[in-house]
Amino acid sequence: MTAAQGPAVRADLRRLSLNQKTTSSWSLAEAVDGCVRAGLESIGVWREPLADLGVEKASALISDAGLRVSSLCRGGFLTGEGPTAQGAAFEENVRAIEEAAALGTDCLVMVVGGLPEGSRDLPGARGRVAEGIARLAPIAADHGVRLALEPMHPIFTADRGVLATLGEALDLAEQFPPEQVAVVVDTFHVWWDPQVEEQIERAAGRIASFQVCDWITPLPADSLLSRGMMGDGHIDFTRLLGLVTAAGYTGDIEVEIFNAEVWAQDPDEVLATMKERYHRCVLGL
Amino acid sequence: MTAAQGPAVRADLRRLSLNQKTTSSWSLAEAVDGCVRAGLESIGVWREPLADLGVEKASALISDAGLRVSSLCRGGFLTGEGPTAQGAAFEENVRAIEEAAALGTDCLVMVVGGLPEGSRDLPGARGRVAEGIARLAPIAADHGVRLALEPMHPIFTADRGVLATLGEALDLAEQFPPEQVAVVVDTFHVWWDPQVEEQIERAAGRIASFQVCDWITPLPADSLLSRGMMGDGHIDFTRLLGLVTAAGYTGDIEVEIFNAEVWAQDPDEVLATMKERYHRCVLGL
Repeated sequence: MTAAQGPAVRADLRRLSLNQKTTSSWSLAEAVDGCVRAGLESIGVWREPLADLGVEKASALISDAGLRVSSLCRGGFLTGEGPTAQGAAFEENVRAIEEAAALGTDCLVMVVGGLPEGSRDLPGARGRVAEGIARLAPIAADHGVRLALEPMHPIFTADRGVLATLGEALDLAEQFPPEQVAVVVDTFHVWWDPQVEEQIERAAGRIASFQVCDWITPLPADSLLSRGMMGDGHIDFTRLLGLVTAAGYTGDIEVEIFNAEVWAQDPDEVLATMKERYHRCVLGL
Repeated sequence: MTAAQGPAVRADLRRLSLNQKTTSSWSLAEAVDGCVRAGLESIGVWREPLADLGVEKASALISDAGLRVSSLCRGGFLTGEGPTAQGAAFEENVRAIEEAAALGTDCLVMVVGGLPEGSRDLPGARGRVAEGIARLAPIAADHGVRLALEPMHPIFTADRGVLATLGEALDLAEQFPPEQVAVVVDTFHVWWDPQVEEQIERAAGRIASFQVCDWITPLPADSLLSRGMMGDGHIDFTRLLGLVTAAGYTGDIEVEIFNAEVWAQDPDEVLATMKERYHRCVLGL
């Protein structure tokens, strides 16, 4: 790398965040070290590895490394039926809100949950999500945290997230102040949507996170692990970045890849590839 | 079966159609015989087995058996770039229109095609679909055939069909008279859509086909073969039948299942299961 290239590339990394899931084999401490080695400034944290380390230690580790937390993944799973399931979900989400606050991030990603076992009542499940968000929103606000609703690709409607489109997530989010309930724009989940332009425009002021990974074909056998490295699939990232930018989003760009082949690689190599693809496929440089 | 049950069950089969793909191992002649044995009155035909037999022979065989053709699958694949690809697609679709007319069905199912190899230009591909439909619609009308646009589940946007929602298909269909361009409502493709109620209502007068099969989890490894028998998955069929009925649809209800396990079964057994599930899960009897 020449001296002339150095500062430009450095500048371009300022918004790039590693979502921990992309380097699934790393502990949180290893991921923090890896980000520092790669010159990143931001990391998206998952609750399970966070629990392994403890929130206070994790928070100190991340800030001592000079990193910020772009998001905490994840709250949600609000579709359970009956007071016991709903009470447990409420308490779990309050803990997630507290953890986000302790980590200094205002973005709690909400994966809202799928249909309960044996249920075919999709409108009912969506109704319970709305009720759960209404109960949690003021608590999140008290902690300076936004509930970031993640509309999920319809491949996951049955078993992960009944909010299927950005428009649907905004219909719910708009019932609350934007500092309480916002949305995640994840390229994997929204790229196919014929309304993506108008809905991202509508999301102005409510985009809490922009996540990137690719839609690859043939789809891997395990649909949960079907996300690809940017450039390996069919998504036009520069178009989607242009849309969120036009909607006023200036925050981190988080790379979140669930993929068995990516997970089998040396995580430092994954970060190197991720940086190169980020420049070429996302920023269009 | 008692005499009292006989007429009621017979009456309930009047709208049930076997889409040939559900009994993939059968030739068209075998499928026609199977439908007759099962007491069905209608069959959805695919072009490849039709070509094996020849259109004239097939048409005579089906009408001699007392069956009607609920649909011909399929035209489409209009997303290719350049005059050569588009010219070939046009000619192929004209042949499909002629075959539909020869079979006496007014419903040509259109699977519009995915992104061309290496392309990430989804708006461009959608634009070419609109151009192709505009060119074909008057030809279809001359033959008394409707182009039935099939919005496909977003799992197929990249590689099968860039029309991803019923709303998007209607945006295109409404540019033409309803007797020229209509839509297919396939439960597998639309069940997840938060706008499904309003879009089916909007589709009144343009529903050319109602197809049923289930969304099952975990999703089978081959996403093309991921459709399940009604009752094995998460779809509320009676709700969706109620919506198309409220929109004035009184036509056939076609069972179309792509699934390796179903294909491995004795096709007569598949038809027996299909009839039972149709009564219980679709009609709600």
